[in-house]
Amino acid sequence: MYGQTDIEALLAEYREGKGWGALARAITRVENSPPWQVELPTPTEPVQVVGITGPPGAGKSTLTGRMIDVYANAGARVAVLAIDPSSPISGGAVLGDRLRMETHLMGREDVFVRSLASRGSHGAIAGATRNVARLLELSGAFDVILIETVGAGQTEVAIAELADTIALVTVPGLGDAVQAIKAGLMEVADMVVVNMADRPGARETVRHLRLSMGREFFVTTTIATEGVGVPELREALEERWDRLREGDGLTRLRARKRAREAALVAEAWVRSCADEITEENLDLNSAVKRILEEAARRWTT
Amino acid sequence: MYGQTDIEALLAEYREGKGWGALARAITRVENSPPWQVELPTPTEPVQVVGITGPPGAGKSTLTGRMIDVYANAGARVAVLAIDPSSPISGGAVLGDRLRMETHLMGREDVFVRSLASRGSHGAIAGATRNVARLLELSGAFDVILIETVGAGQTEVAIAELADTIALVTVPGLGDAVQAIKAGLMEVADMVVVNMADRPGARETVRHLRLSMGREFFVTTTIATEGVGVPELREALEERWDRLREGDGLTRLRARKRAREAALVAEAWVRSCADEITEENLDLNSAVKRILEEAARRWTT
Repeated sequence: MYGQTDIEALLAEYREGKGWGALARAITRVENSPPWQVELPTPTEPVQVVGITGPPGAGKSTLTGRMIDVYANAGARVAVLAIDPSSPISGGAVLGDRLRMETHLMGREDVFVRSLASRGSHGAIAGATRNVARLLELSGAFDVILIETVGAGQTEVAIAELADTIALVTVPGLGDAVQAIKAGLMEVADMVVVNMADRPGARETVRHLRLSMGREFFVTTTIATEGVGVPELREALEERWDRLREGDGLTRLRARKRAREAALVAEAWVRSCADEITEENLDLNSAVKRILEEAARRWTT
Repeated sequence: MYGQTDIEALLAEYREGKGWGALARAITRVENSPPWQVELPTPTEPVQVVGITGPPGAGKSTLTGRMIDVYANAGARVAVLAIDPSSPISGGAVLGDRLRMETHLMGREDVFVRSLASRGSHGAIAGATRNVARLLELSGAFDVILIETVGAGQTEVAIAELADTIALVTVPGLGDAVQAIKAGLMEVADMVVVNMADRPGARETVRHLRLSMGREFFVTTTIATEGVGVPELREALEERWDRLREGDGLTRLRARKRAREAALVAEAWVRSCADEITEENLDLNSAVKRILEEAARRWTT
């Protein structure tokens, strides 16, 4: 169990000027712990956590790289958490992108990039990612935290859901948009970025999205490879953050996210308990009951 | 709640000669119910349920199509459950394959093919798929039930895990094999099929798999597009089934699968409860506790 005290010690080490090595060690400890074993204080100075999600091939890595530049050029200190693929499909290409991004950033002191492995159930992965993001927030070293997911499956939805702002990246073509809706990403997104906007069909995709999501919903376009539209995206994110910080918007948003996080952690905990207490000689109904009661009992103690 | 009685009524309708329409209706009812709302009797005459899983592009649909031919030509009645993609990635291609397969089979009376939608959490999807497979088993209409999944993510692992036999389909090239191991599919597989075995590197992939999985583990090769190796695959499946039915092998296997199913259903139930009872004014620890206790309490009543 890494309680508040341990984390504070690690963060103190970082603040004492031991550099990003200390921060990286703290991240590793938090990342490798089941989310229920990590207890982090509430940040006094909240930092916007932005989830960048969408189907593979939408250009998320390129866009994230450009966003880093735009934020850094505006004087903001940027942290990026990149989730390694849990799916075996496009691992190679994604890791290639990642490597290019990390090489590109090497030696920049205002940017911190970290890849997180995605092992375990989606609740456990999402919870661990949330904890690492909160750790970065607590460090006081960043003005914005970007979380880039890889695919568009349930794990990615769960990770994105816990961010303050969820930017869904898609590309022109109605098919992809419809598929993203199916996957539940559209339901949780706060804004949609139509990347590769120089491709045919971009205008139709934007119009379709505006029609289906309603007037209030923010839809923007980018050409990430050329940096087009990225400053506007940053502005939209900053505006949203300012709006959230007025009144009790952020407090209510984070309470809602915490409730969602509790649901994910509860699920992950049940899975973890079930792996231990599974009994083979019960009917399904009784076995489920046993697992649920044990999970509730163990959480209390 | 669709209890044993309702299902029996639907199955009776099917047995009275009302054809596959009645069976399809029963499937729809079971498919659309949360797994905890479906109570099915234990089959008196067990039928092998084979999970066919692996990364997209490994040729699972083509292989499944060939397996149908081989089984049907041997006089076996075959049911196929194909899981629609929960991931938005390759939907088009997969649905194209599916359409080709269904067209190919149209009018065959010894083959039943059904696509299942994959909505909800992976526990709910896996549980519902398991229930539909059991329904097919109870119908007495089939000698083998093939479940073809689409991707290789957590949902697919969960679905495959509940089958009696899990055949992991892969293609030559070490990368894919390693990635499949990472995804947890290798851990649950009972056999590996190296498809597209006429591609370079097939021999190395087989050797690597044999070395890493151990001597006992069954590794075979196919060229699904030409039907090569498919009769041998069927023989291996039949052999495994005969071996399981000797002594108490099958009883123990199914008890283990039921325990796993209980874990998945418990998880899905917790998620379902959390969506309703989520409270925003609790700290994370208390919120998780509340969800767990409520989930356990509601299951009892």
